[in-house]
Amino acid sequence: MDLDSAIVTLEQIQETYKYLRAQRDVLHTPTLLHVQSLFPELHQSTNITESTDDTKSSVKRNSLLDTDLYIKLESMQTTGSFKIRGVLNQMRKVQERHGKQAKLVTMSAGNYGKSFAYASRHSKTKAICVMPHTALENKVKYIEKMGVEVRKTLTCELQSEVDRLVAEEGFVFCHPFDDVDLIAGYSSSALELLEDVPDPDVVVVNCGGGGLVSGVAAGISLSGGKDCKVYAVEPEGAPTMYESFKERRPVTLSDVKSVASGLAPPYAGTICYRHCRWFVEDILLVSDEEILQTMRLLFQRGIIAEPSGCAALAAVLAGKVPNIAGKKVVVYISGGNISCAELQKLIPEDQ
Amino acid sequence: MDLDSAIVTLEQIQETYKYLRAQRDVLHTPTLLHVQSLFPELHQSTNITESTDDTKSSVKRNSLLDTDLYIKLESMQTTGSFKIRGVLNQMRKVQERHGKQAKLVTMSAGNYGKSFAYASRHSKTKAICVMPHTALENKVKYIEKMGVEVRKTLTCELQSEVDRLVAEEGFVFCHPFDDVDLIAGYSSSALELLEDVPDPDVVVVNCGGGGLVSGVAAGISLSGGKDCKVYAVEPEGAPTMYESFKERRPVTLSDVKSVASGLAPPYAGTICYRHCRWFVEDILLVSDEEILQTMRLLFQRGIIAEPSGCAALAAVLAGKVPNIAGKKVVVYISGGNISCAELQKLIPEDQ
Repeated sequence: MDLDSAIVTLEQIQETYKYLRAQRDVLHTPTLLHVQSLFPELHQSTNITESTDDTKSSVKRNSLLDTDLYIKLESMQTTGSFKIRGVLNQMRKVQERHGKQAKLVTMSAGNYGKSFAYASRHSKTKAICVMPHTALENKVKYIEKMGVEVRKTLTCELQSEVDRLVAEEGFVFCHPFDDVDLIAGYSSSALELLEDVPDPDVVVVNCGGGGLVSGVAAGISLSGGKDCKVYAVEPEGAPTMYESFKERRPVTLSDVKSVASGLAPPYAGTICYRHCRWFVEDILLVSDEEILQTMRLLFQRGIIAEPSGCAALAAVLAGKVPNIAGKKVVVYISGGNISCAELQKLIPEDQ
Repeated sequence: MDLDSAIVTLEQIQETYKYLRAQRDVLHTPTLLHVQSLFPELHQSTNITESTDDTKSSVKRNSLLDTDLYIKLESMQTTGSFKIRGVLNQMRKVQERHGKQAKLVTMSAGNYGKSFAYASRHSKTKAICVMPHTALENKVKYIEKMGVEVRKTLTCELQSEVDRLVAEEGFVFCHPFDDVDLIAGYSSSALELLEDVPDPDVVVVNCGGGGLVSGVAAGISLSGGKDCKVYAVEPEGAPTMYESFKERRPVTLSDVKSVASGLAPPYAGTICYRHCRWFVEDILLVSDEEILQTMRLLFQRGIIAEPSGCAALAAVLAGKVPNIAGKKVVVYISGGNISCAELQKLIPEDQ
């Protein structure tokens, strides 16, 4: 594939936005305004703990209070994450290319699979989601309930099972993140955001495969927000886009691990990497501890987010996003799919 | 007390707002914008279930989509509810009248006690919170941790224990809801709201003792929003203000019971009743089931609210707030103090 051709255009973004606005299932997600005073900074972050200089530490605290902070709640989107924006557009395009009867296959253990299943629920043609044996049973059940067949396999055999279904049974593969139609779908979130919060200076987005941040950054940049800096945030244990930026090519990592499993695919998507190189300012890393502390702070304020939804805010609270004092900063909470039981396990209330 | 003198004035409201804005602990709570598509109506509400007329039912559904719906998240306030706005103002006024060394006593089993304790935490003088034996242990612990002494007694002896401490030990009583300084404090939420959402047509507020809705309604009305209708919402099992409106005097009920315990004091405050008569359009009732269903819908969208925080939204979703089609409607979520364990008990996830 010619990579240059795989960059979304303003025309594509606008057409997709128009299409998605007409879809009942895609919600205009709300943005919390002026929340800088609601969350304390994470004082255990390295550069603060190591400093014994009180003045410096207090300047840091003040810098967050000086920031005009907004939170875009994609966790309130249909199926509990931003994914449905991309999936609906991806499926539309697949059907345009392969016909309405195209049999679809994907691989996912998480939020993409949920949105894929939700979007397929009224379809009369066959859809399969190949899932790792390790997938949570409640996600498997949800996907099956929507009428999508689940095939379980080893994590290392997910792609080969998909390839087999494509080659031998005529399925069309819907990639769970590295797809320009997904990215165009995700950019709708940026256009929506610009309606609610015009002219943001900085936007901070969680990064797993990189689809959301690619779409948001492209959406903002192409629609005129060239001065707005978009940062992608990954977990330290799965820094695929971070390493890709360092090596200047999309890399695969042999060992990824994070409490934010949705941000921990083993490789950076080629198309996403290209979008990030063009539109994203920098890739920032946060620790699992910072992610969980942020999840706890959000919970204490009454907002439920899954670990994969918290990385961007964790980076802000840990003081890792540069030059935000006096700026208008928007942070994405990208998903809220977590049960009470999982919350209790990850952030016990007696601590 | 002359009741007429116990109605807040615009001057009081504005002065209080200025005072509270300067308090670091009082946060400008965020408002969720345009959330009408995020929540389905509660179809089991009586007037819908009893109707077999599909057209009527579908008109009802559309009417919520036609509404421009906002949610003010007082659940994100310091101590997890709106109470701190009132308590800080009440304590300031008590100290102006009785000196900084005044010993304070209150009675509460819930959010007021939590804010009272939080506001007293740096005080060097004695403060006591008289609590019923039935109070949750985590609230008792929180209040003690803030340095406030807890005295437990029978529910029916709360007031007499307070009276004894006032008469025999020189304590000053801080009423947990029927106090014009509390109401002036709560009105700050309305002025804040009007900054974020100018000219609302309808505002819907939870009502227990009636302090919050008194403050919000007075704040909106006195600051120029005379055309805005403010509704108070009570649980069916504790309709003290509803019955007071019917009897045209503040009533005490011998038997109150609701899953929303914070909305179930046994009597309507005299001062609150007077404010409600002047500023509130009507009192609406919701069932415990409607409250819990609303709590579940909020949880599914990633927002944590306690049952007492959900009554107002429950009234909107049940179609009980009149004439909201085409209107700008703001709903209060007034508190979010609920643990994971309590959430699991009240809204089991396998349902």
